[in-house]
Amino acid sequence: MKINVAILGSTGYTGAELIRLIDNHPHFNITHLGAHSQAGKQVADVIPSISGHISSMTLAAADSPLADDIQLVFTALPHTAAAESVKKALNSGKKVVDLSADFRHQTHITYQQAYGVAHPYPNLLNDAVYGLSEWAREKIRSAKLVANPGCYPTSTLLPLIPLLQAGVLDDKSIIVDSKSGASGAGRSAKTNLLYCEINEGVSAYGLPRHRHAWEMEEWAKELGLKEVQVRFVPHILPMSRGMLTTLHLSGRDTASWHSLLSETYANEPFVRILPEGSLPSTKFVAGSNRCDIGICRLNEHDAVIVSCIDNLIKGASGQAIQNANLMLGFDESMGLPQHAQWP
Amino acid sequence: MKINVAILGSTGYTGAELIRLIDNHPHFNITHLGAHSQAGKQVADVIPSISGHISSMTLAAADSPLADDIQLVFTALPHTAAAESVKKALNSGKKVVDLSADFRHQTHITYQQAYGVAHPYPNLLNDAVYGLSEWAREKIRSAKLVANPGCYPTSTLLPLIPLLQAGVLDDKSIIVDSKSGASGAGRSAKTNLLYCEINEGVSAYGLPRHRHAWEMEEWAKELGLKEVQVRFVPHILPMSRGMLTTLHLSGRDTASWHSLLSETYANEPFVRILPEGSLPSTKFVAGSNRCDIGICRLNEHDAVIVSCIDNLIKGASGQAIQNANLMLGFDESMGLPQHAQWP
Amino acid sequence: MKINVAILGSTGYTGAELIRLIDNHPHFNITHLGAHSQAGKQVADVIPSISGHISSMTLAAADSPLADDIQLVFTALPHTAAAESVKKALNSGKKVVDLSADFRHQTHITYQQAYGVAHPYPNLLNDAVYGLSEWAREKIRSAKLVANPGCYPTSTLLPLIPLLQAGVLDDKSIIVDSKSGASGAGRSAKTNLLYCEINEGVSAYGLPRHRHAWEMEEWAKELGLKEVQVRFVPHILPMSRGMLTTLHLSGRDTASWHSLLSETYANEPFVRILPEGSLPSTKFVAGSNRCDIGICRLNEHDAVIVSCIDNLIKGASGQAIQNANLMLGFDESMGLPQHAQWP
Amino acid sequence: MKINVAILGSTGYTGAELIRLIDNHPHFNITHLGAHSQAGKQVADVIPSISGHISSMTLAAADSPLADDIQLVFTALPHTAAAESVKKALNSGKKVVDLSADFRHQTHITYQQAYGVAHPYPNLLNDAVYGLSEWAREKIRSAKLVANPGCYPTSTLLPLIPLLQAGVLDDKSIIVDSKSGASGAGRSAKTNLLYCEINEGVSAYGLPRHRHAWEMEEWAKELGLKEVQVRFVPHILPMSRGMLTTLHLSGRDTASWHSLLSETYANEPFVRILPEGSLPSTKFVAGSNRCDIGICRLNEHDAVIVSCIDNLIKGASGQAIQNANLMLGFDESMGLPQHAQWP
Repeated sequence: MKINVAILGSTGYTGAELIRLIDNHPHFNITHLGAHSQAGKQVADVIPSISGHISSMTLAAADSPLADDIQLVFTALPHTAAAESVKKALNSGKKVVDLSADFRHQTHITYQQAYGVAHPYPNLLNDAVYGLSEWAREKIRSAKLVANPGCYPTSTLLPLIPLLQAGVLDDKSIIVDSKSGASGAGRSAKTNLLYCEINEGVSAYGLPRHRHAWEMEEWAKELGLKEVQVRFVPHILPMSRGMLTTLHLSGRDTASWHSLLSETYANEPFVRILPEGSLPSTKFVAGSNRCDIGICRLNEHDAVIVSCIDNLIKGASGQAIQNANLMLGFDESMGLPQHAQWP
Repeated sequence: MKINVAILGSTGYTGAELIRLIDNHPHFNITHLGAHSQAGKQVADVIPSISGHISSMTLAAADSPLADDIQLVFTALPHTAAAESVKKALNSGKKVVDLSADFRHQTHITYQQAYGVAHPYPNLLNDAVYGLSEWAREKIRSAKLVANPGCYPTSTLLPLIPLLQAGVLDDKSIIVDSKSGASGAGRSAKTNLLYCEINEGVSAYGLPRHRHAWEMEEWAKELGLKEVQVRFVPHILPMSRGMLTTLHLSGRDTASWHSLLSETYANEPFVRILPEGSLPSTKFVAGSNRCDIGICRLNEHDAVIVSCIDNLIKGASGQAIQNANLMLGFDESMGLPQHAQWP
Repeated sequence: MKINVAILGSTGYTGAELIRLIDNHPHFNITHLGAHSQAGKQVADVIPSISGHISSMTLAAADSPLADDIQLVFTALPHTAAAESVKKALNSGKKVVDLSADFRHQTHITYQQAYGVAHPYPNLLNDAVYGLSEWAREKIRSAKLVANPGCYPTSTLLPLIPLLQAGVLDDKSIIVDSKSGASGAGRSAKTNLLYCEINEGVSAYGLPRHRHAWEMEEWAKELGLKEVQVRFVPHILPMSRGMLTTLHLSGRDTASWHSLLSETYANEPFVRILPEGSLPSTKFVAGSNRCDIGICRLNEHDAVIVSCIDNLIKGASGQAIQNANLMLGFDESMGLPQHAQWP
Repeated sequence: MKINVAILGSTGYTGAELIRLIDNHPHFNITHLGAHSQAGKQVADVIPSISGHISSMTLAAADSPLADDIQLVFTALPHTAAAESVKKALNSGKKVVDLSADFRHQTHITYQQAYGVAHPYPNLLNDAVYGLSEWAREKIRSAKLVANPGCYPTSTLLPLIPLLQAGVLDDKSIIVDSKSGASGAGRSAKTNLLYCEINEGVSAYGLPRHRHAWEMEEWAKELGLKEVQVRFVPHILPMSRGMLTTLHLSGRDTASWHSLLSETYANEPFVRILPEGSLPSTKFVAGSNRCDIGICRLNEHDAVIVSCIDNLIKGASGQAIQNANLMLGFDESMGLPQHAQWP
């Protein structure tokens, strides 16, 4: 029997990716698609990439109630709007994977620092589990609410946590230089996101401190067991999907880092440590739920680590499904692509 | 139980796509991957997009024999080289889907006109079934050898055949203006295929008569039951995947064309006729096995039809699997993506 | 001494290109830059590609009066808004090159058919000269108002006019299949023009009859001396600049077409006829004011002609300057790039 | 009177850019174009972006002698091959701007470390002036041989030198994270440079130590007067042109850095310091000879500096012409574009 599922905020890029992946999932059945301004239209009118049965489903208004038989809700809404929907869904006994930033923080204080607004439901923060799947499996299995990590933190924390836990990193030298495809900026009509403004150019943004820096530091401390400061610089690139994070790191015993990461992730279906000296490309993960990681030692003290994800899959909708699989007791990799779509 | 499968020519773009899709197919099991110059390497060394178990399989030399328990062979080799491998595989009792041009023609004469070389095994031409899945299902089911159609002919014949059969087209006015992503040109190291040569530019090529023009005319006659001449102009575009074909057509009773196509393809899982006046984009089929078709009537006599496919899926590896499903008695859409990966 | 120049509508893509090119022109001096919503800002705030002295000029409000010493005005405004500014500038004795569609038509009737609105100043239509520079030089030299041609008509008429004049074309078989970079769609914030919507995809648009079809037919008749019907299908491509038009033509004596075009354009600085059988790429004209044309004969009756321009230069701002040079008595190619920026 | 000029290695991307820019230069006259494998062809056969008179010039063989009246030679050849041509040209009394790496190093030892081969003419190294135009004007004016800097060092040293000279940087914390368009990898036919391999992906390369790291350190010491170690990680991006370098820096008194850079470069035509907090994009320098620099202070000790150039212009052919202008006594900015071609 299939689990009935709702997706709220289904017509942005992560919403569309949720529809595509969940419609192919053997145990999930989409019965509700919420949309803000597009309510009343059919799926295929707004997302023509979706075909078959699901494509003629009518998009529900944002405030349209969820049927009782829906057990699982994905919220892909802007922050603060998401919190409202999450609260309602939890109140009616449903499990929730929230793809917004609303429940990613441990306290309402860091949330406010990062997002500049007061948290609407600070009491709910304690109930949320931070869904970096590889590092919170047990908690996720029993969670009612999973806060799906941001794309930049996912690509940063996966390589970082084992090194932090091993205590081989200098606390203050964590430099995170990330490069993201344009889909990370969302689907709203802004001049600076027009094709001709993004195409054939690269720029940094979000300085001096991007919102995701708080999330990185908070979970580096919690999961890596070490207080750190990150210097994080994101860039936007002329490509639709993909995120590459270059970590410029210092510490001790860099010769051991490759085996440290290799052993940590040896049995993970979605984390691949490349042979020492090999470097990943976003092109080889785009379309998959994988994170590929390359380690290059510069000398005894310095190393460069490069990690790649598809920002819409492992960085958003794919990890959300990975978490939902855990919450519902399914095989963690169910319905998730392991191979990239290449070229 | 799974069917053991070989892929010959597995490290080009269509080969890589075959590996990705077949490794996800519930009833196929890849046990042999042939490669020319890359033999001895592991899959992930040459195609890092492939992960998991299959990625550590060793690539076999081109002349490496196929195990007896292999029942199905996909050949994704250059023309004439393919014919050799096809013949060997057939001789040892295996079923074959050939993605090359070697068995797409009805006679060795058109083959020689189109490809400029004598056919190595003209006697085998009669045994091959032209695998335009939607129009040759019954023959494909019982075929030992299926010749997988070219990408341009697939995108052209699907919209054209119903109109030809209905007798509503002027014979001499079939103008086919196609636009293809660069992956159609293959993975060989040529200066004119370098990133900087293709990027930010568009050009026509293959004039005065591209090889696929013969294939289009031959099968338009056989499947559309009407002798026609196509004027075919292909273009290469700055994108990796996707093919759009614009048909500039004249005939009679254009008002009926939309319903004619809609009815013909009403129950097809991989052909979608858009609402009248709507036009497709390759972006909405890339990553899927679909062909999206839009019809726009200009007046009583003239109409424009636009069809879109992913050149590597419905135009190559996806249709090959669709044909293999038919040959082996599986559900035709098994293992094939219906939604596009968007954006 | 330099001529003082104003640009109205200076912050769109064609406006930016006018600033870049005119600021490099030896005889023009920009003294007024009008902008709609951006008035009060400096040039470099809105168009950071512009540097040096001009970059700190303040953008004037749309209704800000033009100084008396301005002799020449370029209007790069939306249609109907342009007409207002043109009228005002003419009334105060200035010469005008209008890049909008407002004065491209011979009668207010075709204008209304094409643009769906009544022409605000139909009496002015007779005063305008259609600025297809190569075909209206003498009239342009003495014009007060030049209507700069649309990009699609420019790429279509340049190859077509000599054939029409020679009477070698079938009237009814003029099929124009154009492919344009995304900058042609302008700089307004629309969801369908976002990077992720345009990137890696191609689609047709503007059917059944794009506005430029009227312009093509009107000037084909006037300049080519022959009434024709075009079947015009434009496509938008994932690239910023460049326009390729594929003409599928029938007629008589196709063997003579190459020399006919070669002789016509032998001494033109901005039209290049490629050797017979060679085909142009937009990549080789982008950044230049050139139109490259390739002719490929299919048989006695049919031929394909492909023309390429940079839609923002020969298709807009470059041709505008070419016309301004003529109007002011300068060398026609002054300040205009002949080489493309490649790669 | 014009200076006769030769370009050796004229058919790669930097060679093509030299032809384009020099053909527009008011005081230079190209009379010799050397090419390796393409000798005997006309310019337009190999670089169709070039039009007009120069396009029909015949490419000379690599060993074809230079006429006596040639005063200036640009060598855009692979390293070691360049040294041969440079020596010959110097011997016959010509001035040379060498765009290869052959004369960029102060000693043959660092050359060998960086390039892995012995320097063919170590005695010539002392005669060469390192042509970072803004920092070596006086020496360049009297030089016979100018070694044109690498693209990565140019984008790194321009922002770095003033800070090094001011003594505000920590020596060991210079992290250089660069992002380059694909044209930097050259025009040779390699599988990894094919359109489909580069498009829609980003990757790091050249680790653990890219050749340009030696060049950066050597000239940081010489021009910045301070011994430093750089940790340099270059990335290749899906765009043709443009280079962005992100400097992650620590030191003291970061609040003063913006004014320090602003004052240093206040009168430079080709270096633009953006307002504090503003960040540059490669899109706004591509097509120009500019370097745009943005400074963002993180705290008292840490700052991020981002610099952008067009790798083929300020990073290669444009700076070469800037240097040639100095060597020949012309205005330094003659023939060089200040505005970017946008979009």
